[in-house]
Amino acid sequence: MAQQHVYSFGGQSADGDRTMKNTLGGKGANLAEMAKEGFPVPAGFTITTDVCVHYSKNGGEYPDGVKEQVLAAISKVEETMGAKFGSDDNPLLLSCRSGARESMPGMMDTVLNIGLNEKTVAALIAESGDERFAWDSYRRFVQMYGDVVLGVERDEQNEDPFETIIDEAREKAGVEYDYELSADQLKEIVAEFKRVVKEQKGRDFPEDPMEQLWGAIGAVFDSWDNDRAVVYRRQYGIPHEWGTATNVQAMVFGNLGDDCATGVGLTRDGADGKPGFNGDYLINAQGEDVVAGIRTPKRIEETFEKDMPAAFKELTEIGERLEAHYKDIQDIEFTVQKGKVWMLQTRNAKRTGFAAVRIAHDLVEEGVIDSKEALNPRRIPADDLNQLLQPIFDPAEKKAAADQHLTTGINAGPGAASGKVVLTAEAAEAQFNKDENVSLILVRKETSPEDLRGMRVAKGILTAQGGASSHAALVSRQMGKACIVGAQELQIDYAKKTVSVGDKVLKEGDDITIDGFTGEVFAGLVTTSPSEVMQVLNGEMKPEESETYQRYSKIMGWADEHRKLNVRANAESEDAAEAVAFGAEGIGLCRTEHMFFGHLDEIREMILAETAETRQKAVDQLLPFQKKDFTELFTTLAGKPVTIRLLDPPLHEFLSDRHLEEEPGLDEKLAKIAGVTKEDVHRRVSELHELNPMLGHRGCRLGVVYPEVTRMQATAIFEAAVATKQAGHEVFPEVMIPLVGFKTEFENQAAVVREAAAAVFEKAGTEIPYTVGTMIEIPRAALRADEIAEGAEFFSFGTNDLTQTTLGISRDDYGSFMPQYREMDIVPADPFQTIDQPGVGRLMKIGIEGGRSTRPDLKIGICGEHGGDPKSVMFCHEAGLNYVSCSPRRIPIARLAAAQAAIAEG
Amino acid sequence: MAQQHVYSFGGQSADGDRTMKNTLGGKGANLAEMAKEGFPVPAGFTITTDVCVHYSKNGGEYPDGVKEQVLAAISKVEETMGAKFGSDDNPLLLSCRSGARESMPGMMDTVLNIGLNEKTVAALIAESGDERFAWDSYRRFVQMYGDVVLGVERDEQNEDPFETIIDEAREKAGVEYDYELSADQLKEIVAEFKRVVKEQKGRDFPEDPMEQLWGAIGAVFDSWDNDRAVVYRRQYGIPHEWGTATNVQAMVFGNLGDDCATGVGLTRDGADGKPGFNGDYLINAQGEDVVAGIRTPKRIEETFEKDMPAAFKELTEIGERLEAHYKDIQDIEFTVQKGKVWMLQTRNAKRTGFAAVRIAHDLVEEGVIDSKEALNPRRIPADDLNQLLQPIFDPAEKKAAADQHLTTGINAGPGAASGKVVLTAEAAEAQFNKDENVSLILVRKETSPEDLRGMRVAKGILTAQGGASSHAALVSRQMGKACIVGAQELQIDYAKKTVSVGDKVLKEGDDITIDGFTGEVFAGLVTTSPSEVMQVLNGEMKPEESETYQRYSKIMGWADEHRKLNVRANAESEDAAEAVAFGAEGIGLCRTEHMFFGHLDEIREMILAETAETRQKAVDQLLPFQKKDFTELFTTLAGKPVTIRLLDPPLHEFLSDRHLEEEPGLDEKLAKIAGVTKEDVHRRVSELHELNPMLGHRGCRLGVVYPEVTRMQATAIFEAAVATKQAGHEVFPEVMIPLVGFKTEFENQAAVVREAAAAVFEKAGTEIPYTVGTMIEIPRAALRADEIAEGAEFFSFGTNDLTQTTLGISRDDYGSFMPQYREMDIVPADPFQTIDQPGVGRLMKIGIEGGRSTRPDLKIGICGEHGGDPKSVMFCHEAGLNYVSCSPRRIPIARLAAAQAAIAEG
Repeated sequence: MAQQHVYSFGGQSADGDRTMKNTLGGKGANLAEMAKEGFPVPAGFTITTDVCVHYSKNGGEYPDGVKEQVLAAISKVEETMGAKFGSDDNPLLLSCRSGARESMPGMMDTVLNIGLNEKTVAALIAESGDERFAWDSYRRFVQMYGDVVLGVERDEQNEDPFETIIDEAREKAGVEYDYELSADQLKEIVAEFKRVVKEQKGRDFPEDPMEQLWGAIGAVFDSWDNDRAVVYRRQYGIPHEWGTATNVQAMVFGNLGDDCATGVGLTRDGADGKPGFNGDYLINAQGEDVVAGIRTPKRIEETFEKDMPAAFKELTEIGERLEAHYKDIQDIEFTVQKGKVWMLQTRNAKRTGFAAVRIAHDLVEEGVIDSKEALNPRRIPADDLNQLLQPIFDPAEKKAAADQHLTTGINAGPGAASGKVVLTAEAAEAQFNKDENVSLILVRKETSPEDLRGMRVAKGILTAQGGASSHAALVSRQMGKACIVGAQELQIDYAKKTVSVGDKVLKEGDDITIDGFTGEVFAGLVTTSPSEVMQVLNGEMKPEESETYQRYSKIMGWADEHRKLNVRANAESEDAAEAVAFGAEGIGLCRTEHMFFGHLDEIREMILAETAETRQKAVDQLLPFQKKDFTELFTTLAGKPVTIRLLDPPLHEFLSDRHLEEEPGLDEKLAKIAGVTKEDVHRRVSELHELNPMLGHRGCRLGVVYPEVTRMQATAIFEAAVATKQAGHEVFPEVMIPLVGFKTEFENQAAVVREAAAAVFEKAGTEIPYTVGTMIEIPRAALRADEIAEGAEFFSFGTNDLTQTTLGISRDDYGSFMPQYREMDIVPADPFQTIDQPGVGRLMKIGIEGGRSTRPDLKIGICGEHGGDPKSVMFCHEAGLNYVSCSPRRIPIARLAAAQAAIAEG
Repeated sequence: MAQQHVYSFGGQSADGDRTMKNTLGGKGANLAEMAKEGFPVPAGFTITTDVCVHYSKNGGEYPDGVKEQVLAAISKVEETMGAKFGSDDNPLLLSCRSGARESMPGMMDTVLNIGLNEKTVAALIAESGDERFAWDSYRRFVQMYGDVVLGVERDEQNEDPFETIIDEAREKAGVEYDYELSADQLKEIVAEFKRVVKEQKGRDFPEDPMEQLWGAIGAVFDSWDNDRAVVYRRQYGIPHEWGTATNVQAMVFGNLGDDCATGVGLTRDGADGKPGFNGDYLINAQGEDVVAGIRTPKRIEETFEKDMPAAFKELTEIGERLEAHYKDIQDIEFTVQKGKVWMLQTRNAKRTGFAAVRIAHDLVEEGVIDSKEALNPRRIPADDLNQLLQPIFDPAEKKAAADQHLTTGINAGPGAASGKVVLTAEAAEAQFNKDENVSLILVRKETSPEDLRGMRVAKGILTAQGGASSHAALVSRQMGKACIVGAQELQIDYAKKTVSVGDKVLKEGDDITIDGFTGEVFAGLVTTSPSEVMQVLNGEMKPEESETYQRYSKIMGWADEHRKLNVRANAESEDAAEAVAFGAEGIGLCRTEHMFFGHLDEIREMILAETAETRQKAVDQLLPFQKKDFTELFTTLAGKPVTIRLLDPPLHEFLSDRHLEEEPGLDEKLAKIAGVTKEDVHRRVSELHELNPMLGHRGCRLGVVYPEVTRMQATAIFEAAVATKQAGHEVFPEVMIPLVGFKTEFENQAAVVREAAAAVFEKAGTEIPYTVGTMIEIPRAALRADEIAEGAEFFSFGTNDLTQTTLGISRDDYGSFMPQYREMDIVPADPFQTIDQPGVGRLMKIGIEGGRSTRPDLKIGICGEHGGDPKSVMFCHEAGLNYVSCSPRRIPIARLAAAQAAIAEG
């Protein structure tokens, strides 16, 4: 028997059901399901996605058996609907719609009213008794078919010739709307349309209903590969090889009179999740009128009950039944023909993060689903939780600012921010020091670690260069700042202190607004406010005052019940309290160097020191600051583990030619501080210069060459730990050696750390349990993990650097090719956002296996940016990690993603 | 039974033999072998290396049983020698010498004449009838023991107090040499020595012979870990955990009168390999006198026969017997006591590359060994072949130039070169263009690809920065230039055009000389000439005129018989002929971008092009040059495969801010050429800037974004191939895609290449078989090799970049920590010289396994610098590679190393 390519539905039965989305697409599977469940569905059939794949691969050829199966399915439809396709007296009309496994709204093609021609239109007139309706339907059909199937093109003035004809007809008739045109006028329009087709395509408009149908089916399959659809799939990660199904269905008419209507609806509110049926409808119209925007639709929840009381009752009952059946908010399309409701589609509705949380929460409260099902990533994509944390613009305010729109960049840090343009970190700090309440948007070509303190005081970051994983983007997410990167139209002139797009020029100090959700940049101010959840977490609002917070909190509680991965924060003392508020179970990465940027004189003296002795002296000055920092951190995290990474960045981040150029006299000042000559300063700076800093003298390579630094940092850590313990708090320090590639490097540094610990403990007369572990962030470390685990008591995958080295791609430089790589499908996703599982992930697995072969209970975590990416968190769960660590604001996301991973595993 | 820690020898028998070097050390094993074979060896015993390891690990404790076994062994010696250790009337004196598995000449300690005290010295006088001899021996013993065992220290004036005493005694006695001192004077000296010991160490000099012996044994074991020995082992890759053996042996005396002598000898010449016994000796002396340099030794081959005819005859016979027994040139130590020859040591002699080749060759000719044995890496270390290819200084000339010595750097490119200092590549080229015979030494802080053409015309390269794998070092080896890098004392002032070390200043144009064998830099000229082998390969000498060449050629022939790896060259058209002369079986890496530096205008126009169309136009201008280049290359390599790598370096190597700064007006010129504005030029240059160029927009990432370049290069390759074929030569092009990490990248580029090939072949009406393969040079490529091999028809490991990414170390920047890493034993070797087998090697194996799982007959090679490193070649053989590719001058080394690997495998 030939493979089944065609699945029929209608008349309370169907070949398929809702489980068959892969074969029938979402629309087809749900039409089958509705038919089976007794919902009023016009009869029809679905041609499978496999046919699309075959068609696409074989230049438009159909697999064997399709034609015959379609003919048989048409017969079934004719039987069920009591009409005949192509009949001169009782014609069946068909629609033809795409329907992929995942909804791709508006991306593919649709043809309605298939089967109309000069003969059947006469039959339709006779049957409906409505000549205007019949000609209107025919006009719509010829227009759609001409566009979609025949590919009628725009004229020299870039006008749609069909629209031009309608415009002229309206003018001639002296009416404003299409629906005011008479049957005769529509008949004339049809003739004109056909003339255009003949002119442009050199052939007559097809009269044969069967030819029309196959044309429409082919067009739907073809539309899977149109540009829009390809771009959409790339953006949403939908595989190109899935293909779409084609749904052929008997037409029902919402345009047969005032007892007819067409509409779309939601069983709850998709924006905020509030219960209650809502949607748009139009009386006496066909489906495309609702979305076309020519007539303004009415709101179902406002007037439909009054307009069509019986249909309203039937529709809301159908909505309730569907929601009960699907156990989720439904997005439906319907037509009312002569008072009778017909269902054309139902599907789980798209929703915002706010709505997702509320609906999942409410459905549990209503007893429809349990808490485990509430966490299903289909219901709450973990990333969407972010929306609950970000300040928001009032949509009305933003709309009002449309004429202020400057440009659009990459939406790298979700959030809304308005403030004064500031072009340097120094200026930002200076202004902040004058007025802590100042709102600043730091606008730079790109940012570097220098700019950190400026970024910290800014409300938002905007850069002209860089991608979604550039320094600006990473740090913004870490800091929870609104951020837009890669806004390439921006011209930044540091000398003139201006930011311009074309002839629009903003000066430093002028107001600017960025919407980190969308990437939009506006001149001027748009007001924002923190989200309710943030207000509660910050203590500005009581939990009981915010229903949103209560729902968020409940969802988080369910997530914590199910997840197996621990979730920690990448945080320093400044943001540790926030991390704890977000639910961090420890610190997975405290970067010790952030603080050094506040003590540049001392670190520079250390860099310029020419002997171990003078270096020691310089380094000793930093100890009290580090100790204070660590004491604060340990106190905030009392009772929780804290992983502190030793100095990581290359020293030229603290002192380079750029610094000497930007600050005249700095060389002299430093020479005096360090007791060397100006020439020594310049020589040392030139020695520090590196061609590839990412692969240079950094990480533990610093500690090996300058053990004084490691010793100072370790001493500060353990003195802080002792002080914290003596203040009555539990403290669990974990010292992390960065950039280890050789077991010997680890041993060298671990020995210095352990010596420092012993010295501190002896002096204090107390001991604190601690561990010494390592980052796994270069491929060699993963490959030699078995050896390294002989000494290392924990591993933490530094997936940022591990991705850079495994892929040989600098995240600071990949903007010049990565956009094109994404566009050309060279890479399936940005590897700095989502772990490259086949490459980096394989290396991680080698590292995990190696490490645990030596130390079966080795604690392994991840502290790269990927720790806050849901897909990557799921991978970490599957790979057997103990924890993920991410920036504080990603913690809720990580908690939920970890639960989703555990639930998916079953 | 306790483990055997002590092995006796003497009296024509021994517990051990020559096979036991690991346990007995080289000296001990050969003493045992000689005793067994009936050579005259003073009796003694060897304490094993295992004891040293135990002693070293346990703070100077000996394993159980050692003390007893030593006592028993002493008894045996007493029996054999007919004397008694510590006896008042017939005292046995002992020597105590180190002896590791591999010879470490002069690095560890020796004590002679053990057993002498106030009583035994009297017995020695009585027995020998020679009071002066006895007191001289006692003086030597107290001095050596005081130095080595008791650690007597230098005084405030940094004078050795023992030497001061002798000096004073000589002055007082009015004599010039030690041996002119009388017995009484020596007796007084001994008393003074003992006083110094008492003063410095607060204890009497030990009188008890057994205490003396254990002190000496302990000192020898301790000396395994002295600084000198540790540094030596690091330099020669001898594992620290081996330990040394200690050899205790009955003293024989070369200082008992004029029928006594002591000496060292070689059975052939170690410098050039000429046959014939040769060496140094001293009449009436002890061993240390020969090396101490106080008396000038006489040459054995000149006067020994006349001085001591019987001993000469015995010695030369022993030499012949030893060589026949060991089948290799022997390095021996001997003492003649009262006319009788005693053997104190024999070992396979160290030899230069020249001698190694001659001796191996001659021993085969003499029928002593076969050709397989001749290739043993112990006989000809593959690296040493290099010496046959490099120009050389006359040693006398170099000695004469000693006062001109400026500094010493890292000997990165073996060879000798003298010439005028030139500080920029441009100046070098300009001078070369004026006079092709000018000798230039390019002196730079560091070099970059810009400097290539300058390097090509220079005789040698000297840099102040960079390590053995810096750009300068790599390219020098590639070009076969003498090169010294990292000569850190050099101060280079480009503005003043001077090179200085301290107050010695050379101006541009002054003469300078570099010895790339040793790293020495001299002011002024020292004459050099090309080696004979090079003269023959260059056609300047006929093969039959050079015995050296004939021997080299024979060795190469034997290597080719045994090796399984193919050997190819990394070469472009300029050096392809040389590569073939060296025996290249194909080109493994032709870098297509070298030629671009000669057409900067065109490549810069390409870079500045703003549309694919103008880019195509610019690129088209480069096609004829590339085609010409490839045609030359194919013609030179007729019948052999040629692997051509597509454009690899980032575009800023061709156009950067540095270029614009260095060449005023360049921006304007380029704007005109490319038809853009000056601002466009600067904007584009700033876009091209990268923070980590190594991980940036290069390799196939260029080709993916700019397919025009790939298409042009592929077209040039295939047009050249067609032209070469039409000229009657066989041609096998292999197109190599660089820096592939994703299968999709390879597919993208391979498609462009195959399209270009098809177009060229169709136009030409002919077809040429070709393959398209990839570099495996980033970890992801190795990890996904199975997928990549679906498309790639060959792999070539780019181990330079693979090492950089796998280790996360930039070879341009590792100078700041790698020297310290080597010194602290963090890394066992420079990973850019020898493949890091545990890390990079493991990844290579993953890549090989992956690639061959998809394509079992996949051809795999290596084209990194490691392809010319013997240890790495051996690894490549073991890993199952098909070929190695290296710079032309490393080909002989690679051929030999490949043979050695195949033979070692058995």
